Amino acid sequence: MQAEIIAVGTELLLGQIIDTNSPKVAQKLAELDINVFYQTTVGDNEPRLIDALQIASERADLIITIGGLGPTVDDLTKQTVAKFLKQELAADEQALKKIIDYHDTTSKPMSENNKLQALYLAAGQSLKNDNGFAVGSFYKNPNGPDVLLLPGPPWELEPMLTNYTVPVLQKEYKNTGMLISRVLRFFGIGESRLATKLADLIDEQSNPTIAPYAKKHEVTLRLTAQADNRESAIKMLDLAEDKIMERVGIYFYGYGDDNSLVKCLANLLIGQQLTISAAESLTAGLFQSTLATFPGISTVFPGGVVTYNPTAKNKLAKVPVDVIDTYGVVSRETAIEMAKGIKERLSTNIAISFTGVASGELEGHKAGMVWIGLAYEDQPVEAYLYQFGQDRQKNRERAVLTGLDLIRRKILNQTIPEQI
Amino acid sequence: MQAEIIAVGTELLLGQIIDTNSPKVAQKLAELDINVFYQTTVGDNEPRLIDALQIASERADLIITIGGLGPTVDDLTKQTVAKFLKQELAADEQALKKIIDYHDTTSKPMSENNKLQALYLAAGQSLKNDNGFAVGSFYKNPNGPDVLLLPGPPWELEPMLTNYTVPVLQKEYKNTGMLISRVLRFFGIGESRLATKLADLIDEQSNPTIAPYAKKHEVTLRLTAQADNRESAIKMLDLAEDKIMERVGIYFYGYGDDNSLVKCLANLLIGQQLTISAAESLTAGLFQSTLATFPGISTVFPGGVVTYNPTAKNKLAKVPVDVIDTYGVVSRETAIEMAKGIKERLSTNIAISFTGVASGELEGHKAGMVWIGLAYEDQPVEAYLYQFGQDRQKNRERAVLTGLDLIRRKILNQTIPEQI
Repeated sequence: MQAEIIAVGTELLLGQIIDTNSPKVAQKLAELDINVFYQTTVGDNEPRLIDALQIASERADLIITIGGLGPTVDDLTKQTVAKFLKQELAADEQALKKIIDYHDTTSKPMSENNKLQALYLAAGQSLKNDNGFAVGSFYKNPNGPDVLLLPGPPWELEPMLTNYTVPVLQKEYKNTGMLISRVLRFFGIGESRLATKLADLIDEQSNPTIAPYAKKHEVTLRLTAQADNRESAIKMLDLAEDKIMERVGIYFYGYGDDNSLVKCLANLLIGQQLTISAAESLTAGLFQSTLATFPGISTVFPGGVVTYNPTAKNKLAKVPVDVIDTYGVVSRETAIEMAKGIKERLSTNIAISFTGVASGELEGHKAGMVWIGLAYEDQPVEAYLYQFGQDRQKNRERAVLTGLDLIRRKILNQTIPEQI
Repeated sequence: MQAEIIAVGTELLLGQIIDTNSPKVAQKLAELDINVFYQTTVGDNEPRLIDALQIASERADLIITIGGLGPTVDDLTKQTVAKFLKQELAADEQALKKIIDYHDTTSKPMSENNKLQALYLAAGQSLKNDNGFAVGSFYKNPNGPDVLLLPGPPWELEPMLTNYTVPVLQKEYKNTGMLISRVLRFFGIGESRLATKLADLIDEQSNPTIAPYAKKHEVTLRLTAQADNRESAIKMLDLAEDKIMERVGIYFYGYGDDNSLVKCLANLLIGQQLTISAAESLTAGLFQSTLATFPGISTVFPGGVVTYNPTAKNKLAKVPVDVIDTYGVVSRETAIEMAKGIKERLSTNIAISFTGVASGELEGHKAGMVWIGLAYEDQPVEAYLYQFGQDRQKNRERAVLTGLDLIRRKILNQTIPEQI
């Protein structure tokens, strides 16, 4: 079973709006085990839409158009599809009544175009629009691919898709299987290294599939299992996860698409009521502002300092002048004093510090060299050394994420992966 | 001149990620007056990518692929396009060196796949990747449509597109006239309000065209003039700019695609050697870390404090306890004391403070209420009140940008637009 999505709209081709509809439809199709091999975007233009329909009809069992069902002159999807299929359009009486009633109630003038929104492919069925006037349409085609017409505004498409379209597709194309995904998140390892370590698993496994994705400064693995029932699918995912964890488990930090290092750490800090402060040099506030993206963090985060130059390191974080003079600002000793200083100052359970070279050169050290100091409860203050790359902003971002991960590991008493 | 965009990636077909690249590329093409009639999305699958290339080559003069240039086994765009075109791939020596150096510096093991990222279409030219390893490729095809290969990660695609691809396309596909663009940047006014104020100009002008774009928290206007020579084009742009400035000049802050409020302010501070510090509550370090994105800022920025709770406001920014008790943390008085406190502490020419309600409610004030305090040289410390929206992160970002703009206006002695 293969479907092809055709998104219709000149504004899409011009890049004026981002197509969030096709991914939504594709996700639902994946859940229904309907493959999508191609998606096409085409403008509000009859011959080019017909061209796209022609190509799609040669390679798909189901064609789904999105958009072009509205009342304006450039909305021509329905008429063009009807012409292409040589099918008639008919009015959905309920939808037509809704349109007429609306114009009566609001005393707005109604044009003939408004009525067009109630039309659907007469030989098929109409799909209700909870948030607008334009009905959708599903047509089971005895002579070619089936056709589904959906509206373009996301607030109209979503309820139509979930409430009225999925049940129809389920009934028409039901299969017995169950498709379940799981996302594993990793920090401290690049996409290519992760993929290399798992190469045989990724290549050999077809169920569940294992797909690595590079995110900003982290990598995710999406495992997708297909089985007769939920329990079997979950068992398959568990097995695959075990094999993965054996090899790269040390870099794993959490599950799910909607997750992040800062979320994991903030939940830990709040859950265990561990207070935290920070003294930041090269990151200049980025650690603290990242932590503060999490609502509710104020109960455990009183604040901290940004000590961008040596004077501020001394005045705000109480780093002794002779430590800076003796060891330099980019040093284990300064990192340790910064963390110690702010921890004492704000009486927190944890304090972290960042000092290093964001770009260029400093004290003979090259760009990307970063010391992270960590004062944890009454334990001796430690400092960790890293060598990142050349890019100023990336170095600062990686330092922040590395800091978040360090504290997370410390709280959970997990191994800290290799530095430098 | 017609181009076709082919986005490559199974995760796109499955709806797991939203394609923001194609719109970005489409926008640039529109600016270059290159039409896009079709966009296709296809998975990481050789035969289906070849199928898409075949169809595109029958209807386009330029085929642009996005994605699939990375180091993993499912990255096969480059190899597939080379096969389709019957062209060789060659290594970009500089890019290869960058890959090898990176693995040397970080002591990470390098796989053969990593090296593949340096390959480009040998008969064409390589396009530099500022934020990654995979080079792009442009091939001027004597026997069919030209081909452009771009990487999938948006942070790699964007700089490659703007810095290296657009100049190539401009050179290759220049139309006879001279096409010159100018970008005007505005802060403090929304896109729809700006467009309304300029509606007649935007509608009536066809040369130069005036196109508004909504950016994050700001708006740009792109003026594009076509003329026989550079001088005439520039004269046309100047005339249009004058008309625009008459109406919305108060919100204008700078020129160019590669510009920002922080860049404008940092240049002013460094140019005039004005030192700056900050005391941040709701922004929690975001102002300072934004300022520090600018290399060279350390000469004028010693540091500052993040005073997320009242204790920190008192301990780090010397806000008297009775001021907080009497007026609350979200108040003119606290904002003023925060700015005053950190200015004294670090002896800077300028100090700024932020206190307000990022989300939820605080001291009876609703989300989005923000006080910004500004201590400027020996002038009396002032505070400005704003009411932003509901979104936590957006409120913090808008506060930071508003602060940058306030200081910029203060230095330049410009009018400060309406608050609240």
